[in-house]
Amino acid sequence: MPSYTAPVRETRYVLDAVLGLERYSNLPGFENATPDMVEAILTEGGRFAAEVLAPLNRIGDEHGCVRHDDGSVSTPPGFKQAWDQFVAGGWTTLSAPEEYGGQGLPQVIATAISEYLLSANQAFEMYHGLTAGAIASILVKGTDEQKQTYVPNMVSGRWTGTMNLTEPHCGTDLGLLKTKAEPQADGSYKITGTKIFISSGEHDLAENIIHLVLAKIAGAPDNVKGISLFIVPKFLVNEDGSVGARNGVVCGSIEEKMGIHGNSTCLLNYDDATGYLVGEAEKGLAAMFIMMNAARLGVGLQGLAQGEVAYQNAVTYAKDRRQGRALVPGERDPNAKADSIIVHPDVRRMLMEMKAFNEAARALVLWGGLLVDLGRRAQTEEEREAASDLLGLLTPVIKGYLTDQGFKAAVDAQQIYGGHGYIREWGMEQFVRDARIAQIYEGTNGIQALDLVGRKLGANGGRAIQAFFKMLAEESASPSPDGEGDHQNIGGGVIAEVSTALQKSTADLQTATMWLMQNGLANPNNAGAAAYPYMTLLGVVSLGLMWLRMAKASTAALAAGAEDKAFHEAKLVTARFFASHVMPETGSLRRKIEAGSETLMALPAEAF
Amino acid sequence: MPSYTAPVRETRYVLDAVLGLERYSNLPGFENATPDMVEAILTEGGRFAAEVLAPLNRIGDEHGCVRHDDGSVSTPPGFKQAWDQFVAGGWTTLSAPEEYGGQGLPQVIATAISEYLLSANQAFEMYHGLTAGAIASILVKGTDEQKQTYVPNMVSGRWTGTMNLTEPHCGTDLGLLKTKAEPQADGSYKITGTKIFISSGEHDLAENIIHLVLAKIAGAPDNVKGISLFIVPKFLVNEDGSVGARNGVVCGSIEEKMGIHGNSTCLLNYDDATGYLVGEAEKGLAAMFIMMNAARLGVGLQGLAQGEVAYQNAVTYAKDRRQGRALVPGERDPNAKADSIIVHPDVRRMLMEMKAFNEAARALVLWGGLLVDLGRRAQTEEEREAASDLLGLLTPVIKGYLTDQGFKAAVDAQQIYGGHGYIREWGMEQFVRDARIAQIYEGTNGIQALDLVGRKLGANGGRAIQAFFKMLAEESASPSPDGEGDHQNIGGGVIAEVSTALQKSTADLQTATMWLMQNGLANPNNAGAAAYPYMTLLGVVSLGLMWLRMAKASTAALAAGAEDKAFHEAKLVTARFFASHVMPETGSLRRKIEAGSETLMALPAEAF
Repeated sequence: MPSYTAPVRETRYVLDAVLGLERYSNLPGFENATPDMVEAILTEGGRFAAEVLAPLNRIGDEHGCVRHDDGSVSTPPGFKQAWDQFVAGGWTTLSAPEEYGGQGLPQVIATAISEYLLSANQAFEMYHGLTAGAIASILVKGTDEQKQTYVPNMVSGRWTGTMNLTEPHCGTDLGLLKTKAEPQADGSYKITGTKIFISSGEHDLAENIIHLVLAKIAGAPDNVKGISLFIVPKFLVNEDGSVGARNGVVCGSIEEKMGIHGNSTCLLNYDDATGYLVGEAEKGLAAMFIMMNAARLGVGLQGLAQGEVAYQNAVTYAKDRRQGRALVPGERDPNAKADSIIVHPDVRRMLMEMKAFNEAARALVLWGGLLVDLGRRAQTEEEREAASDLLGLLTPVIKGYLTDQGFKAAVDAQQIYGGHGYIREWGMEQFVRDARIAQIYEGTNGIQALDLVGRKLGANGGRAIQAFFKMLAEESASPSPDGEGDHQNIGGGVIAEVSTALQKSTADLQTATMWLMQNGLANPNNAGAAAYPYMTLLGVVSLGLMWLRMAKASTAALAAGAEDKAFHEAKLVTARFFASHVMPETGSLRRKIEAGSETLMALPAEAF
Repeated sequence: MPSYTAPVRETRYVLDAVLGLERYSNLPGFENATPDMVEAILTEGGRFAAEVLAPLNRIGDEHGCVRHDDGSVSTPPGFKQAWDQFVAGGWTTLSAPEEYGGQGLPQVIATAISEYLLSANQAFEMYHGLTAGAIASILVKGTDEQKQTYVPNMVSGRWTGTMNLTEPHCGTDLGLLKTKAEPQADGSYKITGTKIFISSGEHDLAENIIHLVLAKIAGAPDNVKGISLFIVPKFLVNEDGSVGARNGVVCGSIEEKMGIHGNSTCLLNYDDATGYLVGEAEKGLAAMFIMMNAARLGVGLQGLAQGEVAYQNAVTYAKDRRQGRALVPGERDPNAKADSIIVHPDVRRMLMEMKAFNEAARALVLWGGLLVDLGRRAQTEEEREAASDLLGLLTPVIKGYLTDQGFKAAVDAQQIYGGHGYIREWGMEQFVRDARIAQIYEGTNGIQALDLVGRKLGANGGRAIQAFFKMLAEESASPSPDGEGDHQNIGGGVIAEVSTALQKSTADLQTATMWLMQNGLANPNNAGAAAYPYMTLLGVVSLGLMWLRMAKASTAALAAGAEDKAFHEAKLVTARFFASHVMPETGSLRRKIEAGSETLMALPAEAF
């Protein structure tokens, strides 16, 4: 049975030493996020995740969700009690606005807590995570009445939310969707159609479920421009706010999936269900994208979360399992017949790759959370715009690259267990199965890559990527002022080493970007062919930048005589590992991009 | 429900045009492998796989194997009938020696058929595949009496075989094993101990199961040098060859696994079971390695097999599923609202990667099968030695690299299905779960990498790798004599392009090999750290060599006016794709190797 401990120390390090959270204490919401408060929230959230949710993770996987004949769905044993505790603890309310019952904390804090919840029990956290996205859409696009009617109960966790996009014949291409909305005399709509793959679509955790549904109003263009967004509550809400009549939406079946069995993935049948338009008619996709962008950051976080919990358990096993002898005689345990497998360089290789990924991914995704806050709350329009630009650029990377690498980490962690990794009771294979979905949903990673290359890169004349290049150049060029003092040699050396590697990888990224500009316009297939390796390349560079920042932060901490010397020294070693063992990938990625689309597209379909 | 068609045309191409099987018709066993005979065997074997085994693949996954209270095990519905058909068709006998009831066909032909069986139903084929390995051990190390007693019934498929290495506390490090063998007055032994992860360990397909078991004879050294190999039949065999009394080996439980549910993975309890020594006492590991080397080629084949069937189904879906529009307007279907997703470059990227992998992997693994034959049957000692050298070098690459890439192919094929790929009924996620085991068993891929770097590379003064470098240099240097004629421009250009890429990647391999020689001896951890990227690098180069051979073969075929022009032209495009989109990986792999072990080994265990 796997175990989990929330990496509170690691989170604190990113918030304090890397992101410098205290610099933003003058911004709305941040004033409450004092170091003590943050420490308390992280500690308590981590404890809840580890003690309440983690023990339910395998139970959820084994039992799954059960649909009954009447369309109702039971979640796995223990989920309801855990949900009640979750709600009672206020964990659904962290970053929600205070006027709707939230705590108004920065998104970056909620992001940190979400990591713990997802590591402990991804299937459980999804009941909450999608609700947060639904709330965001209603807050931005809904009427005041809609906000008052739905948001407080969603914030409190009495009700949950879903997003309904996919239909049997369309996922990526939403223009094809068939769900219809018939306008009614009272201003509401009757919604009819079938939606599939609806996470948390039906369950017994909450009193009501607020579905956000894409549909086409009768007479609207039969393409992506004809899509509108509707609120369709499972139970209609009475004027006094109480739960009323059952609406015409029923769970037709639960999907049998590869993993995340604890979450009910539903086929929902809408049959003249009452729905309420959110925002303008035929602007549904834009409204849904508010939800989707939040969800994409959340899914990227799932990559880290599964990578982290898989890593923790791989470390435990690698220290515990004795098999074979260290290659270097002096490293052998003289009191045993075999050494812990952590002495083997190939086991180390996997552990270091996971460690280097997890720690940098955490820095990146928390930075993403902070950029959400800064995009909304920074003091000047210029700062808000810069934050939003960068967030837009990094969102597909966080979703795509982090879930790819999180899956790889889960697979490698399983590998460290050898044959035991393939056996269910050890729990490692569940991490692999659960991690796999994150590469697929909320837009497959291929779609993320296209979003990056086709939309984000060129937006506003390439403003975001140019700003990112400037950041990379400045941060990797400057000799660290923190390299002085006692640790100048070791720290300064590490910063120089990581800077050099980052400059080299940045050059690959710049060359690839130039290639895309020159060849992508002339032949869009070149952009399509380059998209995935480009996303990966930007991912490596982004994590490289995180490692440079961490190398600087830990060098500074050591120079300042930090107590936890070993912690910071490990950061410096890991930074060097990333620079020397991971960043070389950018050269190959650049060459793959430059190879273009010709050989990809040359064969007729019959040749496959 | 996925489908499967045996790629007979592809197999024939490798056998005829790439390996030139007819050149060996003077060797024992090859005389029967006439083109007509081979065609018939492949066609019938492919039909059996597709029509009988493939429909049972999902059933096996859903039902799994059931252990009853008495320790007996039922295989999934339909497996027993399929096994009887399999036996009746003589499919267990292909490459077994004629004197034991086999057909005496070359190993390369049996390998080709195994691919089909594994694609159709890996869990089923394993009941047979492990038997073939057990036969090999008995034939090489057993007494005449043992051969006569066990082999004919194992060849015919009346009995099956297993290999018993792993115990709860030891897998890789067999020196730790605790199973004991007590010598008896009659020359037999009493075997007592617990073995785990025994594939096909107990089942209802065959009349008897012949377990090959590693154990330590009382008084033997308590390390790897004290291991002996024993035959322990489930039922003792009477003097007349009939099945006699039940032996003291019982299935204690069936493991709940991530995949290959159709195969019974057993914990076997040996309690004073009667066993018979195979070969010399305390030489058990060498005897087991005969079995293991055969098994490793078979497991490498599993990588290809899962990659192939996953690819076939990804192609079907990519042609069928319509979603979004081609990026280039002229490529859009004017009669539909959306295009087949095969028009999207990122879908093409995945399909081409799978196609390029599968076709080259098939060439490599069939070459491996041929090297087994040549190692045994080539006319001169020099030829036999050269074949065995090369086989030894390539075996860890075939096992390690092909299963890594086969898993990647299964994951990518699942990705092409989007959300549907995560749903069980579509069958794609089973391929991922089934493919995963091949990276783990028969020695994890990390162990393969160590075998390559620690044993195979330096064996006989590096004779094998030097011969391989010579082969690479000669084949990539020579301007193709076949490039002349009608197809000189296209074919010649392709050969030059692939040759150049191969030279470049070979240079990376040579540099890495030199680095290993210089740094691995001084510090064995450098060898350990470099092992995995080195195996991967050798894998890419090996597949690159296969693509060069295929480019030459197809250029020659086109020059000779081959009828199936499209087939050969597709080979040339795919060769160019591999050269431009896959082979660039070697540069990064070389750099990772050169980064050495320092940052891997620097942290104390507590830092993880």
